[in-house]
Amino acid sequence: MRMVDLIIKKQEGKALSKEEIRFIIEGYTDGTVPDYQMSAFAMAVFFQDMTDQERMELTMAMAESGDQIDLSGIAGIKVDKHSTGGVGDTTTLVLAPLVASVGVPVAKMSGRGLGHTGGTIDKLESIPGFHVEISEEEFIGIVNKNKVAVIGQSGNLCPADKKLYALRDVTGTVNSMPLIASSIMCKKIAAGADAIVLDVKIGAGAFMKTEADARALAHAMVKIGNLAGRKTMAVISDMSQPLGGAVGNALEVEEAIETLKGRGSKDLKELCIELGSRMVFLGGKGKDLAEAREMVIENLRNGKALEKFKEFVASQGGNPAVVDDYSIMPQAAFEKDVLAKASGYVTEIVADHIGIAAMLLGAGRATKESVIDLASGLRVLKRVGDPVSAGEPLVRMYANKADFSQSEAMIQAAYTIGNEKVETILIHGVVTD
Amino acid sequence: MRMVDLIIKKQEGKALSKEEIRFIIEGYTDGTVPDYQMSAFAMAVFFQDMTDQERMELTMAMAESGDQIDLSGIAGIKVDKHSTGGVGDTTTLVLAPLVASVGVPVAKMSGRGLGHTGGTIDKLESIPGFHVEISEEEFIGIVNKNKVAVIGQSGNLCPADKKLYALRDVTGTVNSMPLIASSIMCKKIAAGADAIVLDVKIGAGAFMKTEADARALAHAMVKIGNLAGRKTMAVISDMSQPLGGAVGNALEVEEAIETLKGRGSKDLKELCIELGSRMVFLGGKGKDLAEAREMVIENLRNGKALEKFKEFVASQGGNPAVVDDYSIMPQAAFEKDVLAKASGYVTEIVADHIGIAAMLLGAGRATKESVIDLASGLRVLKRVGDPVSAGEPLVRMYANKADFSQSEAMIQAAYTIGNEKVETILIHGVVTD
Repeated sequence: MRMVDLIIKKQEGKALSKEEIRFIIEGYTDGTVPDYQMSAFAMAVFFQDMTDQERMELTMAMAESGDQIDLSGIAGIKVDKHSTGGVGDTTTLVLAPLVASVGVPVAKMSGRGLGHTGGTIDKLESIPGFHVEISEEEFIGIVNKNKVAVIGQSGNLCPADKKLYALRDVTGTVNSMPLIASSIMCKKIAAGADAIVLDVKIGAGAFMKTEADARALAHAMVKIGNLAGRKTMAVISDMSQPLGGAVGNALEVEEAIETLKGRGSKDLKELCIELGSRMVFLGGKGKDLAEAREMVIENLRNGKALEKFKEFVASQGGNPAVVDDYSIMPQAAFEKDVLAKASGYVTEIVADHIGIAAMLLGAGRATKESVIDLASGLRVLKRVGDPVSAGEPLVRMYANKADFSQSEAMIQAAYTIGNEKVETILIHGVVTD
Repeated sequence: MRMVDLIIKKQEGKALSKEEIRFIIEGYTDGTVPDYQMSAFAMAVFFQDMTDQERMELTMAMAESGDQIDLSGIAGIKVDKHSTGGVGDTTTLVLAPLVASVGVPVAKMSGRGLGHTGGTIDKLESIPGFHVEISEEEFIGIVNKNKVAVIGQSGNLCPADKKLYALRDVTGTVNSMPLIASSIMCKKIAAGADAIVLDVKIGAGAFMKTEADARALAHAMVKIGNLAGRKTMAVISDMSQPLGGAVGNALEVEEAIETLKGRGSKDLKELCIELGSRMVFLGGKGKDLAEAREMVIENLRNGKALEKFKEFVASQGGNPAVVDDYSIMPQAAFEKDVLAKASGYVTEIVADHIGIAAMLLGAGRATKESVIDLASGLRVLKRVGDPVSAGEPLVRMYANKADFSQSEAMIQAAYTIGNEKVETILIHGVVTD
C-alpha cells in the first residue's frame, strides 16, 4: 500500500477500507506517513468527505493509536459525556455526581487544556485537597465503590489525533466534518466509554455557529458512536449567551453545588437534567427516558446528588465541607461590577467575549505555560431577556489584580441592550441517529 | 500574511493576488512555507483550480524563483519550442537549424532528463566532439553569429517548480491543470523565451490521453504565455504511435539529418513544418503563417537547413562530417528484428511500450545514475495503417548486449495487427488563445 494512492483514491471521491484507513493512521503515528502527505489527504477529505463507515474507522484507528483505558473492571455501563465547548459550562461538575447517584458509573478522564477557564480538573482543584493523581487501579476501585471518580488525561491518549489536530490547524483543514467528529469521538472511545451523551453547543460562543452545522456535527458523531458499538445520543444546546451565571474555576464549583442543591441558574439545571436523564437511560437505568428523567429530578430534589458530590470530593482527598462553606475555596482579592449604560432588555451577550474577559481576569490559560488563578472569573448577573436599568450591574468581575479595565471593556462590548424582550431557547433539539 | 489563510482562501474558491502567490512561492523556495502547507495548498488548487491570471502569476513567481537566462544580448525575437513529451520525438534536432536557417534566433537551453531516450543534449553528444559545456557569453555569441546554439540547463532553473514537482508526485496533486501548465511554462520563461510554440502530444504514448485534456492543457499554457507577454501558440499532435521511425540517441540524430535532407519519416517532416512555420512566424519572419510555412519548406528543399545544422554542430565542437557519414556516431554491436506474428494491417502501436523497449535496450535513463548507451534503440519499420505479412519485420532493435528478449516481448505486446486499415491524423488542432 502506498500513501499517495490512498490520497488519490480519496481525491477521486472513493471510500477507503478499514485496512487503508489503518495504514494511514498507523503510518502517521509512527512517522512513516509524513506531514506533507497527511495534509494533502486531509484537504482531499475536506473536499470529498467520508462515509459514516469511514468516519467510524478513522475514529477507531485514532482511538487505538495510543493508550486506551480499560474500564472492564467497572461493573455496569460506563457512560461518558462530551460538550463541544462553550463559556461557563459547569455541567460536568453537576452531572458526574448526579448520574452516579442514580447508580450509573461515571469514570471520567478529564484534562486541563487551554481556554476561557481551566478544565474540569482545574475547577475541582479549587476544593482544598482534591487531586486527580491516582493510579488507574485506584480510579477503578473508587468508581466501583462510589460510582464516580475523575482521573487526569493520559499523556498518550490518541497521539494520531493530537498530531493531526496540530497539522489541520496550519493547513486549512480544521473545518472538515469527518475530521472534527472523529477527533472528538476517538478520545471518548479511547477513554473507555460504553455509551456517550454529546452536548453540541450552538451560537456565537460555540464552535458551531448555525443550527445546521450543529445538527450535522451531532449526526456525524452519533453515527460514529453507534457504528462503533457505543450507544450515542446528542443534545443541541444554546450557547448564544454563557450557560449559567459563573465563569471561572472556584466560581463554577460553587455554582455546581448550588445546582446540586436544586438552586442556581435555571438554564444550567435544565441542561443538566436533559443530559443527565440521557446518561442514566443509556446507562441502563429507567425503562425509558421519561423514567430516567424522573430519577434524575428526584435525586436533585432529595439531596442524594449532593451527598454523592460530597462522597466524590472526599474520595479524591478534597474537603467535603465545601458544600456548606464556599469560602474554603480560593477567594479573589478584588471585585468590580460592570454597569449597564442604558435601560431596556438584554438582547444579546456574545458568550465568546465573556469567556475572553474571564480569561483576562486570570481564570483560564492562553498558553500551556499560563498559571490559572482559581479564584478569579465573573458572574453574569443579567441574562438575555432580563430587563435592566442604566447603572445596574450586568456582570460582577473577580480578580487578584486591581486593574479590571480590559475585561470591563470586553464585557461592555459583549452586551447589547435594546427595547424588545428577546426569548431564548435552551434546547434546540436532540439527535439519536 | 499567513500561509494558512492563503490555503483557506483557495479552499474557498477565491482567486489569489499576485502578492499572495509570490508569498507562497518565495516562502516555499526559501523554506519558510513547509511542505505540509504546500501540499495542502496544491490539493486545494486541484479542487478549486486557478484563474488564468493566477496561473500566470504562479508561472512568473516560479520562473523568478531561481536563475533566469538573460537573452537580451541576442538580436531578434527568441522563439522557444516545448513538447509535452512522447516517444521518438526528434523535432528539436530538426527545428533548431531549420528555424535558424530562416533567420530566427534559436537559443536553446536543454536538459538530459529521465525517459525513454536521453534529452536533446544526450542525442547531440552522439556526434563526436559535440559539447554543450559553454559559458553563457559564448552561447550568446554563437547565437548572434549563427542564429542557433544549445546550452545545458542551469542547475538552479525554477527551484520552486523542482521542489513542488517532487512534492506533487507523492501527494496526489500531479494531475492539476494549473500546476501542470505553470510547471512547463515557468521553465520556458526562465530560459529567456520571447515567444513559445508548444507541441502538446495526445494519445496512449502521451501525458494527455484525450483530445479534451490536450486542448485544455494547450489553452492553459497559451493563456499563461500571452498574459505573461510571451506570444504563445500550441499545436496538438498525435502520439498514438511513435513519431517518426527512430527511438534512440544516435538513431534519432540520423533521422533528424535525413529529415533535414528532405527525406525521412513523412510524419516527422510534417510536424516539423507545422511547428517550424509557427516559430518563424512568431519570430517575426514572414508576413503571415502561410509565408512562414513557405520559407520553412523552401529551406528544407534547398539545403539551407542542412547547412545550418552542419554550422551548428561545428560551432559546438562537433564533427560536421556526420551529415554524410552516420557511421562516425556510436554503432550498436547487435541488432535484431521483431517479426509480425500475423498478416493484416497495423491497427495500433502503444507508443509508451515502444519507448520502454528502447529504454530497456539502453537508450534512456531509468534513474539519474543510469548511463545511456547512445548507439542503442530501435527503428519502427511498420507504422499504423501499414500492411504487414506474418514474418515481416515490425521493428529493428539495436543494442550492445545480445539479449533482446525483454524488449522484443514489449514490442510484440505494443503492436496490434487487424484486418481493417486504420487512418491516422497527425495534427489534431492548433490553439492560439
